[in-house]
Amino acid sequence: MHFIDVIDYIGTFAFAISGIRLAAAKRFDWFGAYVVGLVTAIGGGTMRDLLLGITPFWMLQPSYLIVTGVALLFVILFRKHVVHMDNTIFIFDAVGLSLFVVVGIERSLDAGFPFWVAILMGMITGSIGSVTRDILINELPLIFRKDIYALACVFGGFVFLLCHKLGMDKVFTEVATAVAVVLLRIVAVKFHISVPVMKVEDDDEKEKEK
Amino acid sequence: MHFIDVIDYIGTFAFAISGIRLAAAKRFDWFGAYVVGLVTAIGGGTMRDLLLGITPFWMLQPSYLIVTGVALLFVILFRKHVVHMDNTIFIFDAVGLSLFVVVGIERSLDAGFPFWVAILMGMITGSIGSVTRDILINELPLIFRKDIYALACVFGGFVFLLCHKLGMDKVFTEVATAVAVVLLRIVAVKFHISVPVMKVEDDDEKEKEK
Amino acid sequence: MHFIDVIDYIGTFAFAISGIRLAAAKRFDWFGAYVVGLVTAIGGGTMRDLLLGITPFWMLQPSYLIVTGVALLFVILFRKHVVHMDNTIFIFDAVGLSLFVVVGIERSLDAGFPFWVAILMGMITGSIGSVTRDILINELPLIFRKDIYALACVFGGFVFLLCHKLGMDKVFTEVATAVAVVLLRIVAVKFHISVPVMKVEDDDEKEKEK
Repeated sequence: MHFIDVIDYIGTFAFAISGIRLAAAKRFDWFGAYVVGLVTAIGGGTMRDLLLGITPFWMLQPSYLIVTGVALLFVILFRKHVVHMDNTIFIFDAVGLSLFVVVGIERSLDAGFPFWVAILMGMITGSIGSVTRDILINELPLIFRKDIYALACVFGGFVFLLCHKLGMDKVFTEVATAVAVVLLRIVAVKFHISVPVMKVEDDDEKEKEK
Repeated sequence: MHFIDVIDYIGTFAFAISGIRLAAAKRFDWFGAYVVGLVTAIGGGTMRDLLLGITPFWMLQPSYLIVTGVALLFVILFRKHVVHMDNTIFIFDAVGLSLFVVVGIERSLDAGFPFWVAILMGMITGSIGSVTRDILINELPLIFRKDIYALACVFGGFVFLLCHKLGMDKVFTEVATAVAVVLLRIVAVKFHISVPVMKVEDDDEKEKEK
Repeated sequence: MHFIDVIDYIGTFAFAISGIRLAAAKRFDWFGAYVVGLVTAIGGGTMRDLLLGITPFWMLQPSYLIVTGVALLFVILFRKHVVHMDNTIFIFDAVGLSLFVVVGIERSLDAGFPFWVAILMGMITGSIGSVTRDILINELPLIFRKDIYALACVFGGFVFLLCHKLGMDKVFTEVATAVAVVLLRIVAVKFHISVPVMKVEDDDEKEKEK
C-alpha cells in the first residue's frame, strides 16, 4: 500500500465519519447511517467520474465500502469519545479534502479536459459529497453558508495551475496543492474567515425604514 | 408479453403509486405527482445504468412512462379506495422490489462487474427511487429510518451469490433471490423488525446525568 | 457570436438570477449563491447529457460559468433594482426556457433517440435545473405545485413533433416550438392557469364528515 493510498483512506474515513454522525443525529438506523457516510465519502468522486464519462472509482475496488464500514463501527463503538475528537477529525477531513482535490484535478487532465474543467472537478470531488449528505439529512448544505470549503478546493486548483505553468515537477505540484487546501481550511476555521453572505432584497427595505 | 414483463410492470406500478400518493399529500399538481411517481419507479434503475455506463433502461421503450400514467389515473379515479388497498400495494411493492434486485444484479454481471458491485447495484436499483422520491417531497428518506428495505435487497444479493456458487441454474437463482427479498420484507413488516437506530453522542451525556 | 448564442446566454443569465436570488433569501454566502445559480442554469442540460451518454455541454466551453458569474455580480450590485425587474426577468426566463427545450429536443434526436425520448429530454433540459435549485435550498420543488412550467416544455415538444411531421423546415420548427413555450408560459402566468392539484385521501374523509 502506497503513502497516497493511506491518505486516501484517511480522507474517506473522515468524510464517512462526518456523514455517519450527522445521520445519527437524525436517528437514522445503522444501515441508513452507513449509506449517508458512504455517499459523503464517495459522492464527489462519483459525480466527477459521471461527468468525465468514466467508471466511478469505487466500483473498481471494494476498499471504499470497507473503510466506510470501519468508520460506522468506529462511531458505534467509540461514540462517547468521538465528540472529543473533533480537532483530530477536522485535520483528517482537511487532509482528505486536499487529496480529493489533487485526484480530481489529475483525473480530469488525464481524461483530456482543459485546466478550468479540472479545477472545477477538483472542487466537485471535494465538496459534492458533503452537499449530497446534507440533502439526504434534509438540511441546507452547510458548505454554502459557513466557512471556506469549496473555495479552498478552487484555491488549491489555482495553486496546481500555477505550479504547472512554472514547470514544477508532479510531486511538488501535488504537495503544494494539498498544503494550500489544508492551510486555507485551517486558517479559515481558526480565524473564522467566511465568504460574505448574500444580502437579500428585503435588507434594503429594512434600511430604508430606518 | 412474458411473465417477467408482467412482474416488471406490477413493480413499476406499485412504486409509482407510492410516489404519487406521497406527492398528493404534499399538494403537488397532477404533473408534479406524475414526475414523482416516475422518479420513484425508474430512479433506482436510472442511477444503476448511469453508474454502469449504459443507456438508462426506460429510454429504450416507453412502457415505463405509460405504466406510470396508468398509476396516476388510478390514484385520481380510485382515490377513495386506494387507502384500503395498502396490503395489496405492499405485496405489489415487495414483488416489484424483488424483481428490481434481480434485474440490477444481472445487468451488472452482464456489464462485466464483479459480484460485490452487482449486489450493490441490486440494492441501488431497488432503493434509490424511494430515496429520490423523499428528497423531492422534502422529507427524510424513509428507508434509512424504518423497516428493513435496502437491507432486504442486499440479503437477496447474497442469496443470488450463494445459488451461483452452488452451481444452481439461472431460473432457480432468480426465483430464490426474489423469494428471499419478498419474504424478508413481509417478515420485517409483520414482526416490526428494524435495523437498530444509531445512538447519538448526546445520549451518553443524558445517561451520565442520571 | 450567433443570435442563438445570445438567446442561450440570456436564458442562462435568467435561470442563474433565479437561483442566486433564492439562495440569497436563504442566507447562502456568495460562493454558495454562485453554485446554486450555476446548478439552476446548467442542471437540466447536464442531466440530459448524462442520460444521453454525451459530455455535458458546459464542460466544452467556459461561457456558462462566466455568464453565471456576471449574474452573481449583477444581483450583488443591483440588488435594490432586481426586485423591480421581475417582469423583465420572467420574459428572459421564458425565452431561455424555450431555447433550452429546442436544444434538448435536437440534441436527443441527433444522438439517435426517438421522438418521445426527445420530448422528455426537452422537458428535462428546461425543468431539472429549477428542481435541483429547490432541493439545494431545501424547499418543495416549485414547478410541481405552481403554474404550467414543465408542461409548457412538453407542449413545445409536441409542436416540434407536429412541425416535423408536416415537413416544415428546421428554422420554422425551432421558432414555432420556442414561441409555443413562451406563449404558454405567458398565458399561464397572466391568467393564473395551473395544472389541477392532486386531491388527497383525507379530502374524502372530510367530505364524508359533512
